[in-house]
Order: sequence, then C-alpha cells, then structure tokens
Amino acid sequence: MREIGVGILGFGTVGAGVAAGLLKNRELMAERTGMDIVLRRIADLDITTDRGVEVDPSVLCTDAFSVISDPSVDIVVELIGGCGIAGKLVRAAIEAGKPVVTANKKLLAEQGCEIFKLAQEKGVDVFFGASVGGGIPVIRALRDGLAGNRIESVHGILNGTCNYILTRMEKEGLPFETVLKSAQEEGYAEAEPSLDVDGFDTLHKAAIIAALAYGVQPDVHTLSVEGIRGAVDGADIVYAGEFGYRIKLLAVIKNDGESVEIRVAPTMVPRDGMLASVSGVFNAALIKGDLSDKTLYYGRGAGRLPTASTVIGDILDVARNLSSGQPRAFVIPRTRMPLRIKAKGEEKSRFYVRLSIKDAPGSLAFASGIFGNHGVSISAALQKEPGSSCGGFATVVIITHEALRADVDAALEEISESPLSGGVPHCFGIAD
Amino acid sequence: MREIGVGILGFGTVGAGVAAGLLKNRELMAERTGMDIVLRRIADLDITTDRGVEVDPSVLCTDAFSVISDPSVDIVVELIGGCGIAGKLVRAAIEAGKPVVTANKKLLAEQGCEIFKLAQEKGVDVFFGASVGGGIPVIRALRDGLAGNRIESVHGILNGTCNYILTRMEKEGLPFETVLKSAQEEGYAEAEPSLDVDGFDTLHKAAIIAALAYGVQPDVHTLSVEGIRGAVDGADIVYAGEFGYRIKLLAVIKNDGESVEIRVAPTMVPRDGMLASVSGVFNAALIKGDLSDKTLYYGRGAGRLPTASTVIGDILDVARNLSSGQPRAFVIPRTRMPLRIKAKGEEKSRFYVRLSIKDAPGSLAFASGIFGNHGVSISAALQKEPGSSCGGFATVVIITHEALRADVDAALEEISESPLSGGVPHCFGIAD
Repeated sequence: MREIGVGILGFGTVGAGVAAGLLKNRELMAERTGMDIVLRRIADLDITTDRGVEVDPSVLCTDAFSVISDPSVDIVVELIGGCGIAGKLVRAAIEAGKPVVTANKKLLAEQGCEIFKLAQEKGVDVFFGASVGGGIPVIRALRDGLAGNRIESVHGILNGTCNYILTRMEKEGLPFETVLKSAQEEGYAEAEPSLDVDGFDTLHKAAIIAALAYGVQPDVHTLSVEGIRGAVDGADIVYAGEFGYRIKLLAVIKNDGESVEIRVAPTMVPRDGMLASVSGVFNAALIKGDLSDKTLYYGRGAGRLPTASTVIGDILDVARNLSSGQPRAFVIPRTRMPLRIKAKGEEKSRFYVRLSIKDAPGSLAFASGIFGNHGVSISAALQKEPGSSCGGFATVVIITHEALRADVDAALEEISESPLSGGVPHCFGIAD
Repeated sequence: MREIGVGILGFGTVGAGVAAGLLKNRELMAERTGMDIVLRRIADLDITTDRGVEVDPSVLCTDAFSVISDPSVDIVVELIGGCGIAGKLVRAAIEAGKPVVTANKKLLAEQGCEIFKLAQEKGVDVFFGASVGGGIPVIRALRDGLAGNRIESVHGILNGTCNYILTRMEKEGLPFETVLKSAQEEGYAEAEPSLDVDGFDTLHKAAIIAALAYGVQPDVHTLSVEGIRGAVDGADIVYAGEFGYRIKLLAVIKNDGESVEIRVAPTMVPRDGMLASVSGVFNAALIKGDLSDKTLYYGRGAGRLPTASTVIGDILDVARNLSSGQPRAFVIPRTRMPLRIKAKGEEKSRFYVRLSIKDAPGSLAFASGIFGNHGVSISAALQKEPGSSCGGFATVVIITHEALRADVDAALEEISESPLSGGVPHCFGIAD
C-alpha cells in the first residue's frame, strides 16, 4: 500500500483536530482509498501545550521550514492562518514542489491569485476546502459537483459567531451587546470580535467563492461589507418577522452575465426558506446553478473536528493526485472575458427600510414621495403609532419593489437630512 | 486541448437534459477543466420525438451497442434505467474498457456489487452520482468530502413525489388520495405511483448510500420499507405538529458500530430542524460523520436539468481520470469486517403511536400498561375526547422514550387484539 506522508504546520485547534482525525481514521481511510496516510511531522512554536491528541513526540518540531524540506513529507498542511509566516510557508512548499492543503481564508482572499499562479507553474495542488464553511464541503461542491454549471448566485451564512448572535437576539429578544458578551463568555465569540461581527471573515470567504465560481480576484478592501454590529437591532428582527422574514448576515455572490456582485450585509431571507432555518453556530451556502437550480450545503462552519473533516477530505484528494502523478490543473477557473465586479450601490434587490419620522400629517406621504422621486417603488408599508418614549416620532417600515441600492441610499440620505427625520434609517436587502 | 467523447444511452428526460447541458456549457467546462467534452453519440429506440434540445442528426442512432463500440466515445452515459437492457449495456461498456456514468438506482441497488467488481477487474470508472438525490451532490459528499469520516448516520428525504404530497397534505389539510390525484395531473406523480409512494424508490437510494458508507450490499427485497400510502393520514400530521414534529418519508441508514440499519418509513422530524424545512419536490440528506458532525445537502431530487447537472459533474470527473490514466479505484469501500444488517424490528428510536381506544374508565391505563409490560416507556401522552362520529372511541397519542421497534410492535399487536381497540394503530419512528 502506498504511504503518503503529511506534515502539519500549526498545532492549534484545527491542527490538533487534523492530527486526531488522521490518527483515528487511518485504517478506515486506507480501506477506502488504498493509501496509507501517515502523519509524519507537526510544526508549531509551542510544542509543549497539551492539545488533547496523543502524537509521538518525535513528530513535533518548532521549525516549519524543516517540515517542508523533509523528504518523508509529501503533503504540507498549513493551519497557521493569516498573511505573514503562513504565506511564506505556503510559497516555500509550492516552490519545493510539494502540494499544499490550507484553511487560510485571509491568505487566499488577499493573495490567492499569485499563490495559484505559482502552484500552476510548479505543477502542484493547492487545496483549500476548509477556508470556507468549516466542515461543509461547499468549496468541493462548487469545484466538482457543480462543475458543469454556470453559477448564477451563492448566498452564504458563513460566520457562526454572527449567526449565533442573531439567533439568540431573535429567540430571546436580547440586544446585540448583551448577546455578544454572553457569546464571548461561552467561547462563541472572540474577545476582539471585529473580524466576525463586522463582516470581514465572511467577506474573505465571499472573495474565495467568487474566485472559484467566476475566476475573479477582487481586491477585498474595495468590496462592500456591513456586519451586524450597529446595523441590526431587535426592532428590525421583529419587523422582519412581521413581513415573513428573518435577518441573517449573508455573503452574496451573484453574476448577472455582465458583472459580478460580491458583498456582505445583514439581509432578510424568507422565513419559510432553508437559509432561515440555519440557526446558532451552523453555516450554510445556497448555490444556484443554471442546471442544478438551487442546492444548499449546511453544517458546522468551524470547530476542531468539523474543519479537520474538510482538511482531511482535501488531503485524500491531493494524495490521489500524487498517486496518479497528475495534480489538479484547474484550481481557479479562468474566464476568457474577465467579469467586471460591481461597485457599491450597483446591486439590485428588494429592500427593507425602517425610518423614524415626525408623527405629523403627511409624514408618510413625505417619505414615500422621496422614494418615488428616486425611482424606488414601494411594495408594502407599515406605520406604528409612536410610543410614549419616542418623542413624537413614528416608526415607518417600508418594503420596496426591486430597486437599485444607490437609488435607495439617495432617498434615505434625503429623508435623513429632513427635519421630519428622527434618526438614522435602517436598510437591508431582501434575498428572495 | 484534449477531447473526450461522450455517448448517451437513453434520450428521455434526463438524456435530453445531459445533452442540453453538455452543449450549453461546453466552453465554460473547457475553461474550467482544460478538456473539451464532446457529445458524440446518442442512442434511443425513438430518435424522432422532439426532446427540446437541438442535436446534430448524425449523433442520433437506435443501436446502443454501436455507441459503446464507437472508438470516438470515451465515456458511456447510461440513462435508460431499470435492470434489463440497461444492465446489459453497462456491463458491455465495462467489458469494452469504457468508463460508465449512470443514474440507474435500481440497477445499482440490486446489482451494484457485481457491477463494481467487474469495473474494478477491468480498471474502469463507474460513477453514479445522479442515482441518489438528482441535482444534489450527495453521493459525491459521501465519497469525497466526507471520505475521512466514519459515517454515523444518513437521514434522507429522497423522493420528491412523496415530499410534495406530504407537504400539501400538511399545508392544505387534504387527504392523501386527493393530493395524489392532483399531483398526477400536475406531473409530480406517475400514473402508477407505487414505486414512489410505497417507498421503493427511496429504498433503492438507501441501499446505494449504505453501500457507499459502509461497504454493505443488502438484498433490497429483505429490507424494511413503508411508504406514505395508507400509512400517513391528516390526523397524524396534525398530532405530529402538536408535539413539535413534521412527518417526512425518510431513508434511515445508521451504523451503531456493530450493525447497520437500513430502512424507509414515514418518520417524525423536529419541526425546527433542517429536514422539516425541506418542502415540496425538494430532497435533502442529513449526514452525520464522526469528524464533520451534521452536514446537510439539499436541492432538486429529480428533473431534467438538475439530474443532468450531477451526471455532467460525474462525466467531468471520469474525463479527468481518463486524462490521468488512473480510474478511481475505490468506488465502493470495503471494510475488513463486513457489518451485519439489522433485521426488521431491531431498530431503536423514540416512537409516535396513535391508538383508537374505547372511551371507558381505565382505557388509557390499559394501553399504557401494555406498553410497560413490553418494556416500552412512555414520554408523553395525549387523549382526545371522542368526536360524535367516533362511535365511542377516543384517540390516544403516545410518544415513547427510546425503545426497540419489535417491543413497540408487540405492544401494538396486543392492543389491537383487545376488544377495547377501535382500529389499526399508527406508529412512526422519531428522528431526533
């Protein structure tokens, strides 16, 4: 039986999970694949902390470059993360002709183009299934299962922290800050939560999906990203429910044939649809192909063993390619006509808008008139009587017909500047 | 660019869909894979009917064997179905050293073992993604994405006709026969619906999943199968709802480490879970792996283009293996210790039971006493006052704790034989 040696760089949560999974299911994988996947080396600066997995001490070392150059290591698994040393190591492995499996979303979102180009020059595989969706084989579905489809759109709930917070805000009627604090105490949110709650983690994943689906390499710093902090409050969740929707932080990747929309924002999804059923820390991606129609992939978006499941799936693929002597030549598809990436405001959808307007005759007419002036047509509206604490301002909720975001924003700016306005409007797209 | 020739056997709904998909996305697939997938031949007894796809008339023929022997055909796509001529053609293609892509669930469920053995001897691929779940890459997820996992269980909604009927029965409060008739008129059910509504189609798919997950080849004729006809009525749907469940026709495939459970039955699923959200003709499979935990795959389980999407995904995989000269050697995993398949009645779960019992003092005590005698513990119970049309019989609904199905059946038999019983009990497992 052919032996394939694996070297892991980074012995953190996921690194320890991959080691545990490789050791636990080694025999099963050998039966399935006819290959013996052997854990040969693990590198980390800290090799003394107990990681909850028993590995032979001779496997551990502190020099990651020595793992790459070790002739018994056939596949390099990069689980350090970030664009610093991890990027250097990934490049060094490729230069050394060794295939790489990585879960590094930041590196791929920001430098994927160069890394895949280098991999193609050197004729080695770079697999990255665990960079999006943790334990959900969503990258694999896009790359293999749906490879015969034009991808029309991907709508993803790709950050477990945000989905956990939104789920509890809805179920328990609690404000964002309270749930965030509790999530931090329970280990569902980082002490510094910005990467998650402000949407950047989701954006990195959206960029990787867009690259895979459309061959575009967007500069993530120019993309539209809104998180849930300061954007979603309890009132929006309640009104969304009244209109038959639920609010989720969505990555939206869409191709209208001329340009690609890539953005992250709190978005309303139909309450009886599949995305609305994704609760707590779970993730999901709804992919629409021109042949397949809608397909959805759901599971744990993070965590030691679920992420390891996907990393190991990649290791097995790479091992098979090593056996056949043929790396996977098409990591990122190229389209002959590169698609333009939409600028902010160019996206079209229906929108939910919540306004606070002076409770005076003509206020609703005033607001809806401004929408009309900007070419935004109203589909449904709801005006609530002002509560005693609202200082004479009434809440108006509007659902628009399909409109251009820029037009909606222009209308909202005009309304905000009026003396009749009682606060910053809230606005979310609707993913029908 | 390497050309790969495809020959399609069977120009029905799916055959026409595959032809349409190959023609429509030929250039896109070439960009993605570096291979030109060329539709070379299509065989069908009827090559005059308009199939809604424009193919060069020279591609069409009525002799399927000539397609197999055509040297320009590299991959044979069998879309005839059934165990007759389709089986002969699949074997002939393998004997001729040509890889096969098929959507034939009946053939694989009944003769998969021999076919895969032959394929292994001849060193050719047999891919069968579209045999389960239509446009959902669920076979691929089991085979590739989750290849590093021990599969603990699969719960599948795998028949669109049944799910469509159950969805409408619940939403519109209509009886089975009414919805079936309407579904037949709308084209969602066959004129002869038994294969679907009596569970056999789902059973074939369950057998294929079990083969892939556990390397077992069950004799499908000995497996436990209950459909929805005569089993689920409106009252059950209502009571399921009162206890927080929805009824779905499920394929259940489970491994407790010693034996494998494979069965098809109407089953109650938690109403706030993902499976309960799968409505209408859509299908889904919930797969639990030891590393991945729960993952779910959802989409259209049938239909021209969705099924073609999966067939084409397989064609691309096979084409890549042809290019590398290395077929996929492990179509069905073998376990060194073949797992025993559970007999009927050996499965354990919680159960829902609906009884009709004489409305007399001590009736509920009588029924619950019998359960107790058979070692079945009751978790919740509900007794409804008898309606005027019930002839003095009250409805009793019982939810059990985890129990052995054989014990529940023995209790139900004893209750049925009592003069206090007013009809055949209804009993469904609960998939928690």
